[in-house]
Amino acid sequence: MTQDPSDKPKGQAQGQAMWGGRFSAKPSDLMQAINVSIGFDKRLWAQDIAGSKAHAAMLAKAGVISSADEAEIQRGLDTVRGEIEAGTFPFRDEYEDIHMNVEARLRELIGPTAGRLHTARSRNDQVALDFRLWVREAAERSAAQIDDLIGALLAKAEAHADVLMPGFTHLQPAQPVTFGHHLMAYVEMFGRDAGRFRDARERMNECPLGAAALAGSPFPIDREMTAKALGFARPTANSLDSVSSRDFALEALSAASICATHLSRLAEEIVIWSTPQFGFVRLSDAFTTGSSIMPQKKNPDAAELIRAKVGRILGSLTTLTVVMKGLPLAYSKDMQEDKVPTFEAFDALELALLAMAGMVRDLEPNVERMAAAAGAGFSTATDLADWLVRKLDLPFRDAHHVTGAAVKRAEQLGVDLAGLPLAELQALNQGISEDVFEVLTPAASAGSRVSYGGTAPSEVRAQIKRWKDSLR
Amino acid sequence: MTQDPSDKPKGQAQGQAMWGGRFSAKPSDLMQAINVSIGFDKRLWAQDIAGSKAHAAMLAKAGVISSADEAEIQRGLDTVRGEIEAGTFPFRDEYEDIHMNVEARLRELIGPTAGRLHTARSRNDQVALDFRLWVREAAERSAAQIDDLIGALLAKAEAHADVLMPGFTHLQPAQPVTFGHHLMAYVEMFGRDAGRFRDARERMNECPLGAAALAGSPFPIDREMTAKALGFARPTANSLDSVSSRDFALEALSAASICATHLSRLAEEIVIWSTPQFGFVRLSDAFTTGSSIMPQKKNPDAAELIRAKVGRILGSLTTLTVVMKGLPLAYSKDMQEDKVPTFEAFDALELALLAMAGMVRDLEPNVERMAAAAGAGFSTATDLADWLVRKLDLPFRDAHHVTGAAVKRAEQLGVDLAGLPLAELQALNQGISEDVFEVLTPAASAGSRVSYGGTAPSEVRAQIKRWKDSLR
Amino acid sequence: MTQDPSDKPKGQAQGQAMWGGRFSAKPSDLMQAINVSIGFDKRLWAQDIAGSKAHAAMLAKAGVISSADEAEIQRGLDTVRGEIEAGTFPFRDEYEDIHMNVEARLRELIGPTAGRLHTARSRNDQVALDFRLWVREAAERSAAQIDDLIGALLAKAEAHADVLMPGFTHLQPAQPVTFGHHLMAYVEMFGRDAGRFRDARERMNECPLGAAALAGSPFPIDREMTAKALGFARPTANSLDSVSSRDFALEALSAASICATHLSRLAEEIVIWSTPQFGFVRLSDAFTTGSSIMPQKKNPDAAELIRAKVGRILGSLTTLTVVMKGLPLAYSKDMQEDKVPTFEAFDALELALLAMAGMVRDLEPNVERMAAAAGAGFSTATDLADWLVRKLDLPFRDAHHVTGAAVKRAEQLGVDLAGLPLAELQALNQGISEDVFEVLTPAASAGSRVSYGGTAPSEVRAQIKRWKDSLR
Amino acid sequence: MTQDPSDKPKGQAQGQAMWGGRFSAKPSDLMQAINVSIGFDKRLWAQDIAGSKAHAAMLAKAGVISSADEAEIQRGLDTVRGEIEAGTFPFRDEYEDIHMNVEARLRELIGPTAGRLHTARSRNDQVALDFRLWVREAAERSAAQIDDLIGALLAKAEAHADVLMPGFTHLQPAQPVTFGHHLMAYVEMFGRDAGRFRDARERMNECPLGAAALAGSPFPIDREMTAKALGFARPTANSLDSVSSRDFALEALSAASICATHLSRLAEEIVIWSTPQFGFVRLSDAFTTGSSIMPQKKNPDAAELIRAKVGRILGSLTTLTVVMKGLPLAYSKDMQEDKVPTFEAFDALELALLAMAGMVRDLEPNVERMAAAAGAGFSTATDLADWLVRKLDLPFRDAHHVTGAAVKRAEQLGVDLAGLPLAELQALNQGISEDVFEVLTPAASAGSRVSYGGTAPSEVRAQIKRWKDSLR
Repeated sequence: MTQDPSDKPKGQAQGQAMWGGRFSAKPSDLMQAINVSIGFDKRLWAQDIAGSKAHAAMLAKAGVISSADEAEIQRGLDTVRGEIEAGTFPFRDEYEDIHMNVEARLRELIGPTAGRLHTARSRNDQVALDFRLWVREAAERSAAQIDDLIGALLAKAEAHADVLMPGFTHLQPAQPVTFGHHLMAYVEMFGRDAGRFRDARERMNECPLGAAALAGSPFPIDREMTAKALGFARPTANSLDSVSSRDFALEALSAASICATHLSRLAEEIVIWSTPQFGFVRLSDAFTTGSSIMPQKKNPDAAELIRAKVGRILGSLTTLTVVMKGLPLAYSKDMQEDKVPTFEAFDALELALLAMAGMVRDLEPNVERMAAAAGAGFSTATDLADWLVRKLDLPFRDAHHVTGAAVKRAEQLGVDLAGLPLAELQALNQGISEDVFEVLTPAASAGSRVSYGGTAPSEVRAQIKRWKDSLR
Repeated sequence: MTQDPSDKPKGQAQGQAMWGGRFSAKPSDLMQAINVSIGFDKRLWAQDIAGSKAHAAMLAKAGVISSADEAEIQRGLDTVRGEIEAGTFPFRDEYEDIHMNVEARLRELIGPTAGRLHTARSRNDQVALDFRLWVREAAERSAAQIDDLIGALLAKAEAHADVLMPGFTHLQPAQPVTFGHHLMAYVEMFGRDAGRFRDARERMNECPLGAAALAGSPFPIDREMTAKALGFARPTANSLDSVSSRDFALEALSAASICATHLSRLAEEIVIWSTPQFGFVRLSDAFTTGSSIMPQKKNPDAAELIRAKVGRILGSLTTLTVVMKGLPLAYSKDMQEDKVPTFEAFDALELALLAMAGMVRDLEPNVERMAAAAGAGFSTATDLADWLVRKLDLPFRDAHHVTGAAVKRAEQLGVDLAGLPLAELQALNQGISEDVFEVLTPAASAGSRVSYGGTAPSEVRAQIKRWKDSLR
Repeated sequence: MTQDPSDKPKGQAQGQAMWGGRFSAKPSDLMQAINVSIGFDKRLWAQDIAGSKAHAAMLAKAGVISSADEAEIQRGLDTVRGEIEAGTFPFRDEYEDIHMNVEARLRELIGPTAGRLHTARSRNDQVALDFRLWVREAAERSAAQIDDLIGALLAKAEAHADVLMPGFTHLQPAQPVTFGHHLMAYVEMFGRDAGRFRDARERMNECPLGAAALAGSPFPIDREMTAKALGFARPTANSLDSVSSRDFALEALSAASICATHLSRLAEEIVIWSTPQFGFVRLSDAFTTGSSIMPQKKNPDAAELIRAKVGRILGSLTTLTVVMKGLPLAYSKDMQEDKVPTFEAFDALELALLAMAGMVRDLEPNVERMAAAAGAGFSTATDLADWLVRKLDLPFRDAHHVTGAAVKRAEQLGVDLAGLPLAELQALNQGISEDVFEVLTPAASAGSRVSYGGTAPSEVRAQIKRWKDSLR
Repeated sequence: MTQDPSDKPKGQAQGQAMWGGRFSAKPSDLMQAINVSIGFDKRLWAQDIAGSKAHAAMLAKAGVISSADEAEIQRGLDTVRGEIEAGTFPFRDEYEDIHMNVEARLRELIGPTAGRLHTARSRNDQVALDFRLWVREAAERSAAQIDDLIGALLAKAEAHADVLMPGFTHLQPAQPVTFGHHLMAYVEMFGRDAGRFRDARERMNECPLGAAALAGSPFPIDREMTAKALGFARPTANSLDSVSSRDFALEALSAASICATHLSRLAEEIVIWSTPQFGFVRLSDAFTTGSSIMPQKKNPDAAELIRAKVGRILGSLTTLTVVMKGLPLAYSKDMQEDKVPTFEAFDALELALLAMAGMVRDLEPNVERMAAAAGAGFSTATDLADWLVRKLDLPFRDAHHVTGAAVKRAEQLGVDLAGLPLAELQALNQGISEDVFEVLTPAASAGSRVSYGGTAPSEVRAQIKRWKDSLR
C-alpha cells in the first residue's frame, strides 16, 4: 500500500481513467496486492524477532532442537535485528510478510538450520503474537503519554487554582469556577483513560505462541517459558481462541476512541478560548501558525488537529469491528485488515496526546478576561438563592422568587448583584443582612463551594495534591 | 419518541407529504419535542427515587433539612415508587423528564416540603447519577448473563469434549479439533467480555451526586454518605467532570460492542452449521421457525438476530461518541442524546445473550457428520509432517516434501493418509515405521495436541475444570 | 421493544439484577422478543394497506381472483384503514407483524376470502414493498423540509445581504464577509442535500411487489400495474434482489447523515454566536430555554439538539451497514433490524430540519457586534496586498512584504489600516495613492469581491435571486 | 506518516516505551508532524498541476498576468510534471504540502514569475480543487470498474442461465432458482452502485477555484473559463461553501460503502460455496492460496479480503463524518484529515472491485452439486401449493394444508414430491391431475416463475439482454 507519487498512468482494462488507479487488473498483480502485507507489517519487525528468539530458546530447552542449532538461530536473529536497525535489511515483497522476510534472511545467513525455528509454530500464532506485542506496547505507551499530559494539566491547574472563569452550561456562563478546577475535570477524564489502557493491557497479557496453526502442538513445548520470556502473565488457554481473536485490539481501540473524545473536548475549548471574542487563553507560537501579513493571527492548528483525531480513531474501531463481525473461527484472511487501522489509530492518538501536553504546558490564561467574564451576567444569582435557603431557611422556591426580583432590580440600576445596596435587598426580604455580600462576588461564589470535588480553590488544591501523590 | 401507529396525517407546512412526518412545524411543538424526555427517561424512575431517598437522608443527617421534613419526603417517595410499580403513576409531558415528574408528584403528595429535596442538588448531577446507576446495573447484568452463557458453553463442551470436527481456516478444513475445544474458544472470549464489564463497573462506580449544577455546593453536604448509600465506592472528585462526562457509558457500550462481535461469530457458525450442506448441528424448535409446508425447514432466526445485534450496538457506540465529540464543558443539551442509544444497545445485548445461552443449551451436534468432515481432505497431513520432524528429526522443509508426496500417492490410490500401506510410506522415506499410523487418524491427531490450550480432549477437560472452579 | 416504566423486577436466572432487565430467559419469551416486530413495524400500516389494495386490484384484473372477491377485499381493507386511523384497531403481538395483523383482521371482517389476497405474494416482497414506500416517503419529506429550510435561509440572507461579519478560518477572523453570504453557503450545502434525497428517491423508485418469496411467481401477475398504482416508475428487475437488498435505505441514511453534518455545523455556529462573548445573534425564546433566576440566560437548546442529531443518524447508518455486511441472499432474519434505525434516523432528521428552519426564521443578527468584529485585527490586510498587486503590479511576494510593514506601523500608531495616514503608506511604497483607502474598510473589502460566488453584496443578491427563481 | 521499518528507538520523554512511538515530544517536531501533509497529499500532484495550468491560462486571458509570464509558468509546470513522472522531483518536507512543493520548484525553475501564479488564489481553494478533482476521478473510475464487474457477472449469468441451485432464505434452501438469476441479483445491486457514483460525480462537478481564501477575489477572474478547462460543469456559487465543504467526499464514500456492502455479500457467498460441504463453485488458482502439504486446499483469500473491505470503507466514512461534525466555517485544520481516509477507502474499493471481477470470470459452478441441492428438502412444496390454487382454485390456506400432508407422505415413502405416485396425491385431493408433475421438479419450478424479474431461464435471459443493451 505504498504511495508512490510518481506512479505513471497504468494501462487499465477500463481505459477511462484520467490518471489511473492504484492497481492493475492482472490477476497475479491483484493477488499480490491482496496477499503481500510486508508494506505495513514490517512495522512488527522487533516483535517478530523477539518472539522468534523466545521460541528458539524454548525449543532448545525442551529438547526439540539442539543447543547448537539454537545458538546459530539466535546469532542469525541478532544479525537480522542489526540489519533492520541499520537500515540495510532487504525487505522483499516476494516474501509477503515480516515473518517470511525474517525467516528467509535467516536462512541466507545460517542455512537450513533456519528451518528448525518454525517447528511447533505457525504463521497464525506468530502474527497473533507479534500484533499482540505491538498493541500491548501501544497501550503502555498511551498510558504513559496520558500520565505526562496529566502532569502538564496538574502543573497548570496548580498555577491557576484561584483564577476565576465562567463555568458554562450550553456554552452560556452559569456559575463562576476556577481555571484550575476546569483543568482538573480533564485530569479526572484522562485518569480514567489511562486506567482503561492499563486494564486492557492486563487483559491481553497472555501469550498466544504455541497455539500453532489453530489446534496446539504435539511437540513437548513449554508455553509458560515463552510467555514469561516475552513478559506475559501466562499463556493463552485455548489455541483456537489464540489465533482467532482480536478483541485485545478492539479494546485498545475503544480506550483510544474514548480518550480521543476527551481530547476533542479540550481541543474545542482551546479553539473557542483562543478567539479574539473570548480571549481567555494565549497559545504559544509552537502550536499555532500565523499569517505573513496579519501578525496578530494565531491559528490554533494543533488544537484543531487534535479535535479531528477522534474521527480517525473511531473510524479504525469501526473498521476492525466490521471486519470481525460474523467471522467463523479460526483464521480468515479478513483478519489481515487488523493492522493498518490499529497502527493509524495509535499514531493519531500519540500525536494528539503529545501535542496536547505541549500545548497545555505553553498555554497562558488571560486572567483579566476570564475574571471579567466570570462576573458578568448575574453569575452569582444561584449563590444568593442558596444563601437565602441556608441563612433564612427559605424554601427553595421562595428563595428563587426573591433572587429573580433582586436580579431584575440590579438590571434596572445597572449594577451587579454585588453592587446592589443592602436596602434594596432588604426591600425584597427583611432578613437579608450585610453578610450576604460575602457570597455575591465571583470569588466568594467559587470560594464557598467547598463540597468534595467543588470549585473552591482549597478543594481544587486538595485534589491536585491527591493526584500528585498518586502519580509519584 | 412514542410510535403511535394511529397518527393521522398532520397538516405540514410543506404539504407534500403523503402520510406525514412525526412532528409539526409549530415552534412550541418542536421545542416540546426537543425538551421533553419523559418518553424515554422514565425508564430511570427507580434510579431517580433511590437517588432522592439517599439525598434526603443525607440532608437530614447534615442538618440541612429537618428530620420531620426528611420523614415526609421519604414517605412521599415511597408512595411515588408504589404508584409507578402499580402502574398508576401519572407520567406527564408537561413535567418534561423523570426528575420533574417525580418531584411534581411528590409536591402533590406532601406539599411544599417537597421543594426542600432539591437543596444542594441540580438536575445536572441528578441525571448524571440516575444514568450512571442505570449503566452500572446494565454492566452488572451483562456480566451475569455472560456468566450464564459461559455456563451453557461449559456444559456443552464437557458433554462433547471428544467429538471430532474440522478445525477451519478460511472456512476450509485444516486440522481436526474437538467440538468441546471449539466451544471453549468462545468461553475464553466471553470470559474476557465479562471482565470488561466488571472493569467498567469498577471504574464508573463513583457517585456524582453533590456536584450540583457544575461547581459543587456551599451546603455542608456529605458526599461520602450518599455515595455509600447508593453502593458507590466513593464520590466523584471533580464537580465539572461529574456532570460533563459520559465515558462510563462509552466504555460500557464498547464492552457491549466487543461482546456482540463475539456473539455474531458464534451465531454465524451456528447458521452455517445448521445448513443441510454442513449438517453439523441441530437447533431446537424453541429457537428456530419452520414452514407450514416444508416440515424439514428450520430457520435459525435466533442465531440470525443475534448476528445482527452487533450492528445496533456499534451504532449506539458511534452515536454517543459523535454526540460527545468536541462538546465544551459542562452540560450541553446534546447530552440528552445519551440515553436512547444506551438503552437500545443493552436491550439488544441482553436479548442476544439470553437467546444465545438458550440456543447453546438446546443445540445438539451431529457427531457423525462432524467426524466424517474432520477426516476428509487429508486433514492429518500436518500430523505426518510433524511426526517426521519429531521421530526422524527431518528438517521441517524435508518433512513437508515427503508429506506432499504421501498425500499425492494417497489421492492416486483413493485412500486417506491413514489408509496408505506402510510400504508406500516407506518408499518415500525408509525410516517411517508402523507407529506413524498413531497420528494419522483425526482422533489421533486431536489427541496428540496436548500442549497447553491444545485441542486434545484431556487438555480441553482440564480447561473446562479450571473454568468451572473459577465460576464456582 | 415497548418501554413500560412500571416493569416490575423479573425473576431472572442470574438473580443478581437489582432492577431487572427487559427480557425473561424463557425460550418462548425470547423467541417472541426476537420474532415479534409489530411494536415497531406497525408504523408501516398505511404502506401495507396501500400495497395490499394495489395487489388485490391487480389480481382481479389478471383474473387470479374474482371481481367480487376483490371488492370484498377492498372494502375490508378500507375498514381496517378506518379502524387504524380512528385508533380502534386491535394490534396483537400474537400476529407478529403489521402484515399479519392486517391480514388477520381482514379475515375477521370478510372471512376466508381474505386468504386470496396473499396469492402470488409473500411476506418477503410485502415487507420489502412497505419499507421501500416508507423510505421513499421519508426521502420526499426530507427534500421538502430542506427546501423549506432553504427558504428560511434565503429570506434571512436577503434581509442581511450587506451586514458585515468576520469570515473565519480556524475560528480566527480572516477577511470580512457578509452575513448574507455566510448563510448562502449553507443554502448551497442544503441544496445538494435535497438533490441527494431526490436522486435516492429516483433510484429506489422500483416496485418489489411480485418478487414473492424470492423467485418470482408462476401466477400471471402484472407487475407493471401494481408498480404504477403505487407511484413507482417500474417494477424491480430481479426477484432475488428485490427481497434481499436494502441499499435504498442505506442511500437514504447516507443522505441524511451528510445533511445532518451540515446541520451540525450551522448549529455549532449558532451556539458560538449566541455566547455573550460573541454576541453575534439573538435567538428567539421559542428555541431557547431560560433560567428562573438568571433572566439574561438564553440556552440554545434547539441548536444543541440539532448538533447532536448527526450522532444518531450516523449511528443508524452504521447499524444498517453492519447488519447487511456479509449477508448471503436472499432474506435473512438479520434484515428485520433495518427498520428501527431507519425510523429513528428520519425522526431525528425531521426534528432537526424543522427546528433549524424555525430557528433561522427567528434569529436576529446583532449588526453592530458583527460589524465591529469584521473590522478588528487588520482584517483588510489581504485587500491591501491585492491592491498593490492589481494597481502597482507588484509581485505577490513584494506586496506581502509591504503589507506586513503597513500592519506593523498601524499597530504602533494604534490605528486600523484604514486609519493610517497616506504618508505612512507612501513611506513604504511611493506608488500608493489615495484610492487605496477604497479597499481598506471592511465594507470596501467585502464589496470588492465581486468574482462569481464572492462575498460582495451585489453577488450575494444575484445568488439569492438565482435560488429563488429555481425554487419557484 | 511514512512507515520506516528501520525506525530506531527514540528517546522519549516518558522513557517507558520498549520500542518507542512514532513521534518525538519536541514541540517543533510535533508541529511539523501536524502541519506537514506532503507525505500523503503528494498523491494530488497531477491535479495540482492541472489546476495551476488552468489558473495561469485564465489569469493571462483576463489580463491579470502577461502572456509572457503565462508562457513561462506553463513551461515550468510542464517541467515539474515531467520531473514527477520521471521520479526525479525533489519532494521536500520543508514545503509542507504538494502545493508549496510545486510552487517552490517552479520558482527554482523560472524565478520570481512563479509568484504571479498565486494571484487571486489561495491554498484554501487550491486544495479544495485538487481534492475534488481526485474524488471526481475516483468516482469515475469506480463506476467504470463496476461496469467491468457487471460485464463479468453478465457473461457468467448467461453461460449458466439454466443451472439450478437452491434459493436460500436464512441460508436454508427455500425454492429452486437458477445460478444465472442469482448472479443477476448482484448485477442489479452493482448497477445501482454505479448510478450512485455517477450521481455523486455530477453533483460535485463544480469548480471551487476562484473562491480564494474564503471570500472570493477582487481580481477580474473568469471562473467559467477555469471550470471549463478542468472539465467542470460550472464554477461553485458560494466562495465560503467552496472552501468549507467536503460533502462531495462524504457522498463518494457513502457510495463506496454501499458498494462494498454488496461486495461483502457476494464474497461471503463465494466463501461458503467454496467449502467442501457446499462445493457449489470452484475458484481458480489465481484467486486462492493453497497449502504445500494439503493439495486439495484452496483458501478463498481474495473473497475474504473483499469481504473485509467494507470495514475499511465504512471506517473512512465514519472518520470524515466525525471530522466534519460541528466544524464552523470556513477552513479549519481539522479538514486536513479528509484525504488519507478517502485515499484508503478508494484503494480498498478498487482492489475489491478488480479482484471480484477477476474471481467471477474464473469461477466455475459445480452444476451437479448445485442441482442436487436444489432438489433436496421438498423445495417444490410451494409449487404444489401454488398449483392447487391456480388449477383447482383452492383457497391459499387449504392448498397449504394439502401440501403439508403431501410432504409428510413423501417423507414416509422416502421420495421427493416429484416421486409421489399420483394416487397418493389424489388421496389428498381428488382434483389433482397428472400435469401437477410439471411443477414438481426443480427445473419445472424455476421454469414456471416467468413473472417479470422471476427466476425462469427465459426471464433471466431477457434481463441479461436488457443489461447488455444498456451497457453497449
